[in-house]
Amino acid sequence: MSKLPLFSIDTAVDGLSKIKLTSPTKLPNATGFLWNRAMVMQVNCRGYVNSQFMQPEPAKYSYAPNMEAKSFIQPEHSYFSHHPGRFFYLKDEDSGEIISLPYEPMRVQLDKFSFELGNSDITWSIEHRGLKITIKVNLTEDDLVECWFFSVTNLTDTVKNISLYPYFSIGYMSWMNQSACYNEALNAIVADSVTPYQKVADYFTNKQLKDKTFFLSDTPPTAWHANQKDFEGEGGLHQPSALQAELLENVEARYETPVAVMQFQQSLMPSEQKNYQFLFGPAKDELEIAEIKEKYLGHQQRNKAEQSYRDYIAQGKACLTINSGNVSFDDFFNHWLPRQMFYHGDVNRLSTDPQTRNYIQDNMGMAFINPERTRQAYILAVSQQTINGAMPEGVLLHAQAELKYINQVPHADHGVWLPICLSVYLNETADVSLLSEMIAFADSAQKQSFTRHIELALDYLINATDHRGLSFIEQGDWCDPMNMVGYKGKGVSTWLSLATAYALTTWCDIYEEYDIGINRQKYDEYRFAAKAINNAVNEYLWHGQWFARGITDDGRVFGTDKESEGKIFINPQSWAMLSGAANDHQKIEMITAITKQLITPQGVMMLAPSYTSMVEDIGRITQKHPGVSENGSVYNHAAIFYIFALYQAGQNNLAFELLSKMLPSLENAEVTGQLPIYVPNYYRGAYHQFPKKAGRSSHLFNTGTTSWLYRCLVEELCGLKGCARGLHVAPKMPATLPYLSGQRLFRGAMVNFDIEQTSDITVMEVLLDKQVIAGNVLTDLKTGQHYQLQVRVPMTSEDNVK
Amino acid sequence: MSKLPLFSIDTAVDGLSKIKLTSPTKLPNATGFLWNRAMVMQVNCRGYVNSQFMQPEPAKYSYAPNMEAKSFIQPEHSYFSHHPGRFFYLKDEDSGEIISLPYEPMRVQLDKFSFELGNSDITWSIEHRGLKITIKVNLTEDDLVECWFFSVTNLTDTVKNISLYPYFSIGYMSWMNQSACYNEALNAIVADSVTPYQKVADYFTNKQLKDKTFFLSDTPPTAWHANQKDFEGEGGLHQPSALQAELLENVEARYETPVAVMQFQQSLMPSEQKNYQFLFGPAKDELEIAEIKEKYLGHQQRNKAEQSYRDYIAQGKACLTINSGNVSFDDFFNHWLPRQMFYHGDVNRLSTDPQTRNYIQDNMGMAFINPERTRQAYILAVSQQTINGAMPEGVLLHAQAELKYINQVPHADHGVWLPICLSVYLNETADVSLLSEMIAFADSAQKQSFTRHIELALDYLINATDHRGLSFIEQGDWCDPMNMVGYKGKGVSTWLSLATAYALTTWCDIYEEYDIGINRQKYDEYRFAAKAINNAVNEYLWHGQWFARGITDDGRVFGTDKESEGKIFINPQSWAMLSGAANDHQKIEMITAITKQLITPQGVMMLAPSYTSMVEDIGRITQKHPGVSENGSVYNHAAIFYIFALYQAGQNNLAFELLSKMLPSLENAEVTGQLPIYVPNYYRGAYHQFPKKAGRSSHLFNTGTTSWLYRCLVEELCGLKGCARGLHVAPKMPATLPYLSGQRLFRGAMVNFDIEQTSDITVMEVLLDKQVIAGNVLTDLKTGQHYQLQVRVPMTSEDNVK
Repeated sequence: MSKLPLFSIDTAVDGLSKIKLTSPTKLPNATGFLWNRAMVMQVNCRGYVNSQFMQPEPAKYSYAPNMEAKSFIQPEHSYFSHHPGRFFYLKDEDSGEIISLPYEPMRVQLDKFSFELGNSDITWSIEHRGLKITIKVNLTEDDLVECWFFSVTNLTDTVKNISLYPYFSIGYMSWMNQSACYNEALNAIVADSVTPYQKVADYFTNKQLKDKTFFLSDTPPTAWHANQKDFEGEGGLHQPSALQAELLENVEARYETPVAVMQFQQSLMPSEQKNYQFLFGPAKDELEIAEIKEKYLGHQQRNKAEQSYRDYIAQGKACLTINSGNVSFDDFFNHWLPRQMFYHGDVNRLSTDPQTRNYIQDNMGMAFINPERTRQAYILAVSQQTINGAMPEGVLLHAQAELKYINQVPHADHGVWLPICLSVYLNETADVSLLSEMIAFADSAQKQSFTRHIELALDYLINATDHRGLSFIEQGDWCDPMNMVGYKGKGVSTWLSLATAYALTTWCDIYEEYDIGINRQKYDEYRFAAKAINNAVNEYLWHGQWFARGITDDGRVFGTDKESEGKIFINPQSWAMLSGAANDHQKIEMITAITKQLITPQGVMMLAPSYTSMVEDIGRITQKHPGVSENGSVYNHAAIFYIFALYQAGQNNLAFELLSKMLPSLENAEVTGQLPIYVPNYYRGAYHQFPKKAGRSSHLFNTGTTSWLYRCLVEELCGLKGCARGLHVAPKMPATLPYLSGQRLFRGAMVNFDIEQTSDITVMEVLLDKQVIAGNVLTDLKTGQHYQLQVRVPMTSEDNVK
Repeated sequence: MSKLPLFSIDTAVDGLSKIKLTSPTKLPNATGFLWNRAMVMQVNCRGYVNSQFMQPEPAKYSYAPNMEAKSFIQPEHSYFSHHPGRFFYLKDEDSGEIISLPYEPMRVQLDKFSFELGNSDITWSIEHRGLKITIKVNLTEDDLVECWFFSVTNLTDTVKNISLYPYFSIGYMSWMNQSACYNEALNAIVADSVTPYQKVADYFTNKQLKDKTFFLSDTPPTAWHANQKDFEGEGGLHQPSALQAELLENVEARYETPVAVMQFQQSLMPSEQKNYQFLFGPAKDELEIAEIKEKYLGHQQRNKAEQSYRDYIAQGKACLTINSGNVSFDDFFNHWLPRQMFYHGDVNRLSTDPQTRNYIQDNMGMAFINPERTRQAYILAVSQQTINGAMPEGVLLHAQAELKYINQVPHADHGVWLPICLSVYLNETADVSLLSEMIAFADSAQKQSFTRHIELALDYLINATDHRGLSFIEQGDWCDPMNMVGYKGKGVSTWLSLATAYALTTWCDIYEEYDIGINRQKYDEYRFAAKAINNAVNEYLWHGQWFARGITDDGRVFGTDKESEGKIFINPQSWAMLSGAANDHQKIEMITAITKQLITPQGVMMLAPSYTSMVEDIGRITQKHPGVSENGSVYNHAAIFYIFALYQAGQNNLAFELLSKMLPSLENAEVTGQLPIYVPNYYRGAYHQFPKKAGRSSHLFNTGTTSWLYRCLVEELCGLKGCARGLHVAPKMPATLPYLSGQRLFRGAMVNFDIEQTSDITVMEVLLDKQVIAGNVLTDLKTGQHYQLQVRVPMTSEDNVK
C-alpha cells in the first residue's frame, strides 16, 4: 500500500469538507452516517452497515444472521463477520484473483484505499492491480432507499476481464417466512418475509409493514444468487464457494437466510470505465419497488436524487462560520457539528418517543439552524404536559407511538429543561409571541399560555422537594441509571435541586430581559425559591471541596471523599456554578478537585472512581462497566455542562481547553478510534482504573452534547449572543487563541466578525462597520444586511483559576 | 480423507448404540443433544453449540455475537461463523500448521473425522498428520456445567511439539456490563456481566441470576486470551491473528465481547498421550465456580460424573425392546425414541409453561417409562383447570412462571387431551385410584375428583359448540396458527369437533373397560353427544372425498376441493376415523385422496397445496413459508395421528409404511440432513410446489410426535396393550414384516415375545409359556416374573385399502 497520510481533510464538490481515512485497519470501527426523515444508516469503513427505517417504529431491511433483539441504539457497536454489510466481490477473470471491496469480508490488502465521508455521501476510492474503483452511497430526500454507485476503470493498457459481485446482506428476516429470488421484470433480487407475530391484533398492525427487501440494479446481471448459506458454502464469507464457478447458479432462498448477490461479467478495454447503479431498501410490495426504480434508476435520476439529498442535508447549515486558523477545529464547528445538530433536531434521533429532556435540548440546537422548528417542538412538548405541571417522560411524535424502554421509568427532571433551553430560542429570535401561545394539556383540553405551562412545570418542581427543600430524585434525574437513590420516595438529588434553581433563575432572567409580562409576584417567588434551594444545597451537600451528588432514601449523603468509589461527580459542581449556589471560593475548590480527579486527555469524566460493584442505594449506574456511559466515562453531555458553567464563571482558558479535548480530531483519532465528523456520546473514562481503554469513542452519534457545544461556541467563545435589544458581543477568548474571525447570521443579518486579543487595551473595543459600539450590543441589525464587526479584547491571562 | 462409510451404528461402552458420522460437511446441520433437568445443549457436528439453562426461565451462558432476541426454540436453526461454539485450535509448533477441531472455524480437511452420538455423551474421534484426537462432552446429573475431555496422542515415532487452544464462545453478554479475565486461583477464565434491565423491580429479580460464565481447566495454561475481537484480529476466526505469535498475550475483555481461550504448549513423545479436562458453564459467583471445580475436576470426579449422568439418561429406558431384523429400525425404537420421549416427559422441553396439550401428550409417553410421573403430571394439569371446566393454555411448572408466547393466545382444544391420553396411563398401570384423587382448581379451593375434573372439561367442550353442534375454534385448536378462522367467535373446527367426539368416546371406553364408577347418565349423555357431533360433522363438513377443515366466522367452509390452496388437511381425516364419524366407504375415499395429495417420501403432509399467501379468514398458518411447519410440512405430530388412526381402521400395511417413512435413518439422512437419534417436529413438505427442499428435517427435537409414535409401536404394531384384565395381545403386522420379537415390560412382568406371520392359520394363536391363551389377554402376569409369549398371526394381505 502506498504511503498516504492516514487521515486528511479535503474539499468536496459541494465546497464542504470531506474526511478521508486511507486504511481499513487502523480505525476499524470508523463510521460515517447518512439519514433522512425516514431512515438512517451508519456506514463502517470496511463495508459493514447498520441501518434502520421508520414504519413508524424502527425496523430493519438488512438483518443480522440470527434473530436479533430490538433495542435502542447501543454504544460501542460490535462487528463480526456476518454483520450486515454491503460488499463487492471482484474477480479478475484473467488471473483468477478475487478480492472484496471496500475491505470485508476477504480483507485483502489493497494497493490504495480511501474511505471518504462527505456531507451527503460516503465514498470509497480504491486502486488494486490496475483497476480503479469508486463506490459511493447516498440516501434520498425522503424515500426508503440506499443509492449505490459503483465504478470500475481499467488503468492498464491491456484488456481486463472481470466479474463484479455486489453482496448485500439481507440476513435472518423472520422465523415465520423468509425467501428471496430474482425478479426479472424489476431486474432485482426481492426478499420476502412476514414480520413474526402470534396475536391476531398484530396481524392488522403488521399488515402495512414493509416486509420485503429489494436489491435493484441498472444492469441486467449475468447471474445471481439469493441464498446466503449456499453462496458462502464451505469456503466461508472470506472465500465463498459460489465464486469458484464461472457463473453463479441462480439460487433462491426458501425459508433460508436471504442475500442479494448479482454477478456482472465485464470486459474492460484499456482505460475503459464501467458504471453500475444499485438501489437497496425495504418495500411493501413489487409496486413500491417499481416506483423506486422509476424514480431513482438512471443517470439523470441519480443526479437529481443526489442534488435533492445534498439540498436536504444542506438545510443543516447553522448560524456561524469560524476561522480560527486550526483547520480541523474550524471544519468540525463549521460543518460536522451543525450537521449532527441538524440530525438531532430534524429527525429526533429517529425515535418516535424521544425522552423529553433530549427532545428539548436537541431542539435548542435547532434554534441555531431553523428556530421555527424549535418553536413547534416546544409547543408540542408542553402540549403533552399534564395539568398538574408534570412534563412527560417522552414526547410522542405520532399517534400510535408509545413510551418505550427508559421512558417507562419515572424521572424527576423533565420540568427543568424548557425554561433553561428556551433562552436560546429567545436569544436567537426574540420571538416572545411563543410565550402567549395558548396550548392544551395531555389530560385537559383547557388551554393555557406557554408561559403558564412553564410556570406549572416550575411549580411542580418546587413542590417536588423534601423538608430540607431538596428535590426528590424518584427513579432518576438527568442521570437515568441513578435509579435507586430515591425509589422509595425519600432520596434527593443535588443536581436536580441545582437544576431547579437554575431553571427558576433562567426563567427570571428571561423575564428581566424580555417583555413577557409575567406576574411580578411569581418572579419574586421564583427568585426566592432558587435562593432557598441554593442555601439548602450548601447546607446539606457541601462536603469539603465539592458538592455531594445526593442523599439516598436512607439518609446517606453520597458522592463525597468518604467513599472509595463515586467520590466526586461532575454535574453537581457544574450546576452549582450555574445556579449560583457556589461562591467564588467554592468554585476554585471545586475546579481544583475536578482537575485533580476527573480530567483526562479526552476531557472530564462524569464521576470518579468508577464503580466496580453494585451500590444498592445508588442503583443501576454502579452496575455499568467502569468507565462506560454514566459510570465514569467522559460523558460529553455532562462534560459540556461543565464547560458551559466554566464560561459562566469566566474560566475561559479551562473552558476552551476542555472544549478542545472533547472534539474528535485527526490528531486524537487513533486514541478515540473515530473520525472527526461527530461528537460521540462518550469517550471511555475510568482513566486511572483502566488506562488502556480510556479515550475510546463510543461511536454513538446520538448525544445531548451537540446543542450545548454549539451554544458554547456561539454564545460563549465567540460571545455573539442574542438579547432583547440585539446581538450582545462578549467573546471569551482563551490565551491560546489570539485571533478568531467568521460570520454570524443573526435574525437575518450577516455579521462578518474579527476578534483579536491584544495587550494594548484593558477594556474590550467593539466596532461595527468601523463605528464604535457602546454597551457592546449591536442593535438595529437588519435582515439581509451584511456587517463588519471588529472586536478587540484585552489579552487573557494564562490561567484564571489561581 | 480415508473412505469410511458416511454413517454407521456402533455399540458404545454402555451397550447401547452410537451413531457415527464420518464427514463434517455432508450433513453440516447434524446435531446431537444432551440435557439434564437444569440445562440442554444441542451440539452440531462441526463444533457449534446451542445451549441454555433454567434459572428458572431459559438463559444463556454462551451467547451470539450480537444482542440476540429471546424466543422459543426455532426449527431449521441457522449457523454462521460467529455462532456460539466450542472449538479447539491446534498448532503444530514444528511445521507451523494450524487446524481447528472438530471442524469449525478453520474448516481444514482432516485425515479422519468421526462425530459420535452416544446415549449420554457426544464424541469426536479425529486423526490428522500423526495426531489422534478425542473430544468428548457430557453433562452432569443436575449441575450447570458442560464437561469436556480432550485427548491428543502422538501416533508418530518422533517428538511432536504442539499448542492446543480451546476456544469457547462466550459472546455478547450484556450492554450494561461485560468483561472477562483469567482467574489464577480457579485456573479459569471467568466472564462477568449484568443482565440488562431498566426497571428497579427487575434488579431484585435479576440479583439471583447466574451472570458469570466460566471456563475451567485441569491444566494451568501457558497463556490465555479473553477478548474475542482482539484474539481474532484481522485474521478472522478462520485464521486468528493471536495464534500467529508464539504465546497468547493474556488479554482481558473490558466492556468488549468475551471469549475463553487458553493455550497449552506441549511436547509429545512418540506414542505419548496427553489428556485435558475442561468445564464450561454459568455461575453466580466465584464460590459456585470453586464448588463445580471441586466436584467435577479430576480423573475420579470425571468418572463418577460420567457414570451418574449415564445413570440419569438411562432412566429413560422404556417398556419395550424389539428385534425386527432391521438394525436401524430397532435401534431407533429401542434406544433413541425412548431417550427423546424421556427428555419430553422428564424435563418438559425445558419450558416453565409447557402448552397444556404438549404437557399432557408428552406425559402420555412417560407412562411407558415411569408411569408415576404421568400420574403426577396429570394431577398438576387438572389442578390448573378453572372450575368452569376450561383447561389452561399452559401448565405452570413453578411459582413465578408465566404464560408466554403462544400461551397468551386462546386455543379451544386443551380439554380434549386428558381423556384421550389418560387411557395409555390406565393401560400401562390399571391404576384407577388416580380417578378418585381429590384435586382443587386454579380458581377454587374446592376439591373434586379427577373423574369430575375430566367431566367438567368434557362438559365445557360440549357447551363450546355452535347451533350445528360444531366446536368453536376461537383463535386456534391443535393447530396454533389457524388463528383467524374463528376469532370473531363464530368459526368452527372440524378437527376439534371430532377430537371432542373422540375424547367423549375414549372416556366412555375407559368407563367400560375400568371400574371407575362414573355416572351412567353421564355415560349415556357422552355417547349421545359424540354421536351428535359425528352426525353434524358429516352433515356440514363432508365434501366429496374428504372432510373439510372447518367453517370460518363468515360461514365459509374451507379445506375442500374448491380451493386452490389448502384443499385437504390430514387432521380431520385421521380424527374422523378415530371418532367414528367416517364409515368404511368414507375411510377408503379419504385414504385414497390422502395418498394422492399428501403422501411424500418422508411421510404425509399436513395439508396441500401449501398456502402461498395470506388467507384472512384462516390466519397465520397461511403466512408461514410453504412446506414449513403447519403450512403443509410433513408435520410429524399430525402424521402420527394419521398412522394411529390407520391402525384403528385396520390399515396395518399403510400405517407401517408411513411409520417407516417418518423414522430418521441412515438411509434417508442425506435427504433429511439429520442423524437418526430423534424424530424431528417436521420434514419440509410442499413436495410438489418446492420439491428441491422437500424432506429436509427441521432439526427440532421438541415434538408431540414421540409419545404417539411409541404408542403405535407398543399398542398397535406389537399389539401388546394393557387392559383391565391384563395384557391384550393383537399385533398389527404389515405384509413387509414377517417376524418380530422382543421384550415387553408390563406392570412389572417381563414378557419375551415372538410374533410370526404365517399363511398356515386364519385366526391368531397366542401361547404364553407354551400354553394357549383364549381371548388373547394375558391375565395374572406377576411383577418380577419372566414369560415367553408366542404369537402366530395370519399372513397380512399386501394392501388392505382396496
